[in-house]
Amino acid sequence: MQRCGLLPIVRAMVPVRYELLAKDLGSHARRGRVHTAHGTFETPAFMPVGTQGTVKGILPAQLRETGAECILGNTYHLHLRPGPEVVAKLGGLHRFMAWDGPILTDSGGFQVFSLADINKIDDSGVVFKSHIDGRAVTLSPEVSMRTQNLLGADIIMAFDQCPAGDAPVVVQEEALERTLGWIERCLRAHERPGEQGLFGIVQGGADLEMRGYCAKRLVELDLPGYALGGLAVGEGYEAMVRVLGHTTPLLPEGKPRYLMGVGFPRDLVAGVLAGIDMFDCVMPTRNGRNAYAFTAAGVLRLRNAKLAADLGPIEQGCDCYACRVFTRGAVRHFFQAGEMLGPILVSLHNIRFYQRLMADLRGAISGGSLGSFVTWDPRCRLGPGGLSEVGKEGGSGVV
Amino acid sequence: MQRCGLLPIVRAMVPVRYELLAKDLGSHARRGRVHTAHGTFETPAFMPVGTQGTVKGILPAQLRETGAECILGNTYHLHLRPGPEVVAKLGGLHRFMAWDGPILTDSGGFQVFSLADINKIDDSGVVFKSHIDGRAVTLSPEVSMRTQNLLGADIIMAFDQCPAGDAPVVVQEEALERTLGWIERCLRAHERPGEQGLFGIVQGGADLEMRGYCAKRLVELDLPGYALGGLAVGEGYEAMVRVLGHTTPLLPEGKPRYLMGVGFPRDLVAGVLAGIDMFDCVMPTRNGRNAYAFTAAGVLRLRNAKLAADLGPIEQGCDCYACRVFTRGAVRHFFQAGEMLGPILVSLHNIRFYQRLMADLRGAISGGSLGSFVTWDPRCRLGPGGLSEVGKEGGSGVV
Repeated sequence: MQRCGLLPIVRAMVPVRYELLAKDLGSHARRGRVHTAHGTFETPAFMPVGTQGTVKGILPAQLRETGAECILGNTYHLHLRPGPEVVAKLGGLHRFMAWDGPILTDSGGFQVFSLADINKIDDSGVVFKSHIDGRAVTLSPEVSMRTQNLLGADIIMAFDQCPAGDAPVVVQEEALERTLGWIERCLRAHERPGEQGLFGIVQGGADLEMRGYCAKRLVELDLPGYALGGLAVGEGYEAMVRVLGHTTPLLPEGKPRYLMGVGFPRDLVAGVLAGIDMFDCVMPTRNGRNAYAFTAAGVLRLRNAKLAADLGPIEQGCDCYACRVFTRGAVRHFFQAGEMLGPILVSLHNIRFYQRLMADLRGAISGGSLGSFVTWDPRCRLGPGGLSEVGKEGGSGVV
Repeated sequence: MQRCGLLPIVRAMVPVRYELLAKDLGSHARRGRVHTAHGTFETPAFMPVGTQGTVKGILPAQLRETGAECILGNTYHLHLRPGPEVVAKLGGLHRFMAWDGPILTDSGGFQVFSLADINKIDDSGVVFKSHIDGRAVTLSPEVSMRTQNLLGADIIMAFDQCPAGDAPVVVQEEALERTLGWIERCLRAHERPGEQGLFGIVQGGADLEMRGYCAKRLVELDLPGYALGGLAVGEGYEAMVRVLGHTTPLLPEGKPRYLMGVGFPRDLVAGVLAGIDMFDCVMPTRNGRNAYAFTAAGVLRLRNAKLAADLGPIEQGCDCYACRVFTRGAVRHFFQAGEMLGPILVSLHNIRFYQRLMADLRGAISGGSLGSFVTWDPRCRLGPGGLSEVGKEGGSGVV
């Protein structure tokens, strides 16, 4: 009785807990587990993105079958529609999405600065025009926290300003100071600290000094977890790897580390080698909807006329539902005919591809074979080059 | 050895076999089973429509879970794209659709006459303009048979002319004579009579005499099954019931009877009472895509603003995946946000609704309670009235 009574209290004080299972000897890579109020996920982990309350076209049961354990929701989109109050009335984001596992929501910061038509931005927050009905909407640390508290994800993110990768240093610096001021307001506004772990976001562009300064300031706050933001926003692969290598070691070993919005398999591998635990990206689903399938042999464009009578699966040896039951020829036909099954099947395949890669990376870390794995497994080299090559063939620049 | 050797021969001679299990005492309704080369389905059966090689948005595993046992493919659409040769190269329609159960293909006749831009029609066949690329395409009894032989469905349909329900008698008569001439050419052209059962289609509009004449002529051909075509094409419910009541008893008891393209739950019930075994219709999926859900309490428009914060399932008590895991509020949001999950979930629900109704009708026939079932179960009265009422509320005339 007493033991049962104590556990919730202990748990309530640590909404997100990182468990280290193994470390790679040749890199900063680590194998672990993140424990949340809605269960545990194995790390390094890839989290599929369910922007508007659904990973596009994929039912939760299918998503679970891909091996995904933690998924993302977007505060920006859900704040605008259906609104956090509605989601709360409908039982919170887990019930809304029919996903009883861990969920992470971003703060809306990245979307505001990358998608929205901004009217005003100052220390108080951002006023922008809703893309749905044109009304003026405000996002601020307080509004973002309130929205994320109402949504109820297990991991929530600090509201930050994310300038473009090539913005002048003065803009980067101003954004950084603003972001550091905002995180303290986020902490004060956060009303469910016992259930939802608030992660801080290290910004600073490609400037290592600024990254280091930001990391140091955030670490002083002893947050439940830390993210690297503002990467894969145009700074280039080498700059990203440099920032990763410099910044990740500055983060505390006992907390989960999350590289936001990244990326190609090659980028995930770079993150894993630097010691990152969590990744998210729309790439597998967005590319899937556009008929681009990730395979160990490169990216396959399913609209390619050569595949019209191809009896093989999307990827030989893949165990996803699409590959188990459908031919390439049929999948191509679904795209040509505008059938939903095309986007659904290639999205499913791509998510499974990403999950299988992460599982193999985790196995390689545990087994002490990460070095040879990343050297020899062709998936670990899959970057924008592989993709654009296939894209060129069809003359498509969709991706 | 000898026994094993004989069986395929017997089976090869009877590609489709009807097994009568029970008859209702108060009507012509019957409970049975149809055996095909790809397995058996229980009757009366509702067959979801997979026009272009997929039931829109639904994966085969999900479709199976709704209780569907036999599904439809459309010769018209598959003939134009990807073409029967491509489907054959990809392993035939079963492999193409990833459906290893029974499949039925229509002949293309109905679609040519209802959808296509017809250039020429005479006894030899129909020349029309492809809606995909504008090229002239010919469908004739021979072309339809060849296409259906290449697709490889278990049940295939005779190529017929299906005039509008309100066409003048002289047009109906000409179409009827043409259809009767065409069925003999279909029989001669059919190259896989041992594996694919060719059903004849009784036409004749609302004219009972013509229906009787057509049925008589077709029954003389001793076909593997018989369909009623040209109903639910504008003749009205009462006329349909009259034709059903007059024509169905003229068909042989030992063969399956199929009412094509019908319809509302109310219409299926009328068909079952007249002794029909098989039904197909796009209604559950098309209405599902347009956010109209069938429920025992009437048709529910999921876009209705009143449902925005509704915590209930689409239909209380329904065991479909959508109702088990999603709230009405979430489903409404998916439609408002243009997410694929909206159409997917309501399609799934509607197919399950139809399958549950058919299972309950089968149980009522077996249990001797059909009369009270159709009198008291509100689903049995669900017709266009229920639908238009809900439609009016939202000002939508989509259905």
